[in-house]
Order: sequence, then structure tokens, then C-alpha cells
Amino acid sequence: MDKMSFSHHISHQYNAELSKIVNNVMRMGELVQQQLADAMVALVEGDSARGEQVVTSDYKVNAFEVRIDEACTHVLARRHPAASDLRLVIAVVKTITDLERIGDEAERIGRMALHLLEADRRRSPMEEVAALGELVQKMLHGALEAFAHMDAAQAVKVAQEDNQADAQYEAIVRHLMQSMEEDPKSVASIMDILWSARSLERIGDRSCNICEYVVYFVLGKDVRHTSFEQMAAEATGDRR
Amino acid sequence: MDKMSFSHHISHQYNAELSKIVNNVMRMGELVQQQLADAMVALVEGDSARGEQVVTSDYKVNAFEVRIDEACTHVLARRHPAASDLRLVIAVVKTITDLERIGDEAERIGRMALHLLEADRRRSPMEEVAALGELVQKMLHGALEAFAHMDAAQAVKVAQEDNQADAQYEAIVRHLMQSMEEDPKSVASIMDILWSARSLERIGDRSCNICEYVVYFVLGKDVRHTSFEQMAAEATGDRR
Repeated sequence: MDKMSFSHHISHQYNAELSKIVNNVMRMGELVQQQLADAMVALVEGDSARGEQVVTSDYKVNAFEVRIDEACTHVLARRHPAASDLRLVIAVVKTITDLERIGDEAERIGRMALHLLEADRRRSPMEEVAALGELVQKMLHGALEAFAHMDAAQAVKVAQEDNQADAQYEAIVRHLMQSMEEDPKSVASIMDILWSARSLERIGDRSCNICEYVVYFVLGKDVRHTSFEQMAAEATGDRR
Repeated sequence: MDKMSFSHHISHQYNAELSKIVNNVMRMGELVQQQLADAMVALVEGDSARGEQVVTSDYKVNAFEVRIDEACTHVLARRHPAASDLRLVIAVVKTITDLERIGDEAERIGRMALHLLEADRRRSPMEEVAALGELVQKMLHGALEAFAHMDAAQAVKVAQEDNQADAQYEAIVRHLMQSMEEDPKSVASIMDILWSARSLERIGDRSCNICEYVVYFVLGKDVRHTSFEQMAAEATGDRR
């Protein structure tokens, strides 16, 4: 939280409350990143212990969400934040919703990995899914870094990578559909991989959402439903 | 908004602001319901005009979200809402996020419907998907009714229907996978139907989220990540 630019208040208590909230978002982010990393090892390397780990740890992510939500409500009720403090609290409330859902998607991937292992149907090539997993993990990490430093330029950079994630995802879907046509017996196992790829694509979208909240905090402007080009122009101050 | 129980303030202006926000959520809800209804007609009856309608109207849903979000930020900054007013504003901010995403899912179904029509591949039976669509439309309508009246008991009732939606969705997935195994040439068209069913299942989940925010508003307690049984016990005041 070195560069976070919320106002400094005469009340040390208030400063401490805001810092604690942001630190907890970062801790929640680390946990969610670990969940996603474990899910990908389970899926790609067929590591059942890591899969079990993901499935049984989701409650920790949920607990973070509820706790941070309560802290935000407390600050809104007691401190009446204004300007950038208010935008910070709103950005936090929205960010933790997306982080929690990213945790859900990681759990889903973990379940699919276990499902594939149970049925011993790990015949399908995982290279493309592994590559998408790496890109999406990089996006999530970048989104959380942008959040930690409230860096709008980095947020825009991360959000722009979503085009590549979408393209990789669509290629995976095409190839998996082709595999199903060629080998109908493998439909069930291919579907597990398809759902996992879908979850990764959703995680990329949600990482972009977090980037949008960072831009909202920094610029005080809602950039959802605008193009990346517009967002980039806003973030760099180029308002043609 | 007849039974909405936010505090009545000496400031008529403040009352008017809160009423306007809730009315706009209801208008946004009506629009999203219409989008979903159009998407289902496009999918089940192969009505391309309705499909086009859904795809070209999504921007209206997005505009509602941004406008209501701004109104909530304004109220938080100027009015410093406390107690039930604060819970109302938080419930609204979360509800409109889910409504916007339900709009996105409806748009996706509209696109799948057009895709199926373009390729003239409408051979797969739609009865099960139509039935899931009806259930999910009923759930969304119920969630919005519960929101309009801030009726926790109705919210719990709607949320409990999600078990049935999940069961119907899983049956559809099983049957569609079987169809792909039996007729590999139809994989592409079946996938379009599968994605549509998936979107419906997600709309059911998001309708449940809205129900949880209603219970949060009424009870002042976060019921996410708790079972329906616990939620029902809370809503009826039975706190064993």
C-alpha cells in the first residue's frame, strides 16, 4: 500500500481502518491467486492433492469477502468518506465481489481436475489450456498489482490483454469441438476441459473488472462499457 | 415501492433521491426481464427479430447500471446514510451489478439463437431448455418482486428454487452430451444450446444473489455463503 493515495486524516484510527481494508483485499487476492495456481496444477499435471486443496479452501475466500464487506459498511456508516476515500471503499466492495467469484471459478477448475482424474480420462492435450491458464494468472496478478498501487496505466495494460485471452479461449473451444466430432467417446472428458477453459476465460473478464475499478478510483470516472481505447485515452489524460 | 421501509427523512429531497434510485432499479429489472424473455423466444421459436432486439438493446441495461451507480455514490457522499438507508444503498449497488450481468447472459442467449438460425441447425429438441428458461424467468421475476417489497420470506422462497434449476440444468447437460456422442456431426449446434442452458443456470444463480441482498437489507445480516435452511431460519426469525 506504499503508493495508495487515499487522503490522510487527522484521525489515525480512520487511516488505520482504510489501510487495514486495503491490506485485507491484498491478502484475499493472494489467497485467490494461490487457489487458481493450485487448480491449474491439479488440471494440467493431474495433481489430485492440489485439486482437493482448492475445493476445501474456498470457504477461506468467502470469509474474506464477508469480513471486508462488513469493514466497508462500518467505514461508510461511521466515517462518511468523501471524494477519493468514498471511491476507494466503492472500488473495494466491487473488487472483492469479483475476487470471490474468481475463487469460485478456481474451485470449479479444481473439481473438473478431480473429475478427470477419477474417471482416468486424461487423454486430451492440455497445452492450450495451460497457456490460457498462464495468461489469465498473469492478468489476475497484474490487476491486483494495479489495485495495490492504484495505477491506472497498469490497469489499462492488463485489461488490454483480455483480447488475447478471448482469442486463445475461442481457439480452444474450436479445437475441443473438433476433437468431440472426431472421437465421440471422449465427449465427457472433453467437456470437463471445456468447462475449465470457460472458467479461465471468465477469470480473465473478472480481472478486467478489477482494472476498471482501479481506473474509476484514479480518474473518478466510470469506464465500464467503454472500449479499451477510450479507457487508455482516459488513463493517459488524452481526452480527444 | 409501496412497502419499502427506508427511513422517512425530514428532507423531502433525500426521500425523493432514495425513491428514485429504487424506482430506477425496478425499471432496470423490467428491461432485463424483457431482454431475457426476448432471448428465450429467439432461442426456442427461432425468432431472429427478437434475437436482434436483445443483442442491440444491451447498451440500455448498461446505461441504467452506470446511472444508478452514480446516484448511489451521490447519496453516499452527500447524505451519509446510516442503518437501513445505508443497507439499502449497498443492496442496490450489488443488485444492479447482478442485473447487468443477467442482461449480458440474455444477450449471449440471443447471440446463440441467431447463430443457430444462421447455420440452419435447429434440429435439437428445445423442450428442456424452454422449461429451464421458464423457471429462471420466474425466479428473476420473484427476486425483483422480493426486492420491490423488501420481502425476506419471498426472497428465501425464490432462492430455494435454485436447487430445481440446477437439477434441470444438469439433466440438460447430460442429455446434450449423449446427443453429441450419438451424433458427432451435431456437436457445433448442440454446443450453442449448451452455452444457452449454461447462461440460464447463471441467471438463476444471480437471481439468488439478489435474494440474498434483500435478506441482508431486511435482517441487517450477511447471509451469503450460508445454506438456504439457515437463510430460511433467519428470515422467519427462527434462530436455533
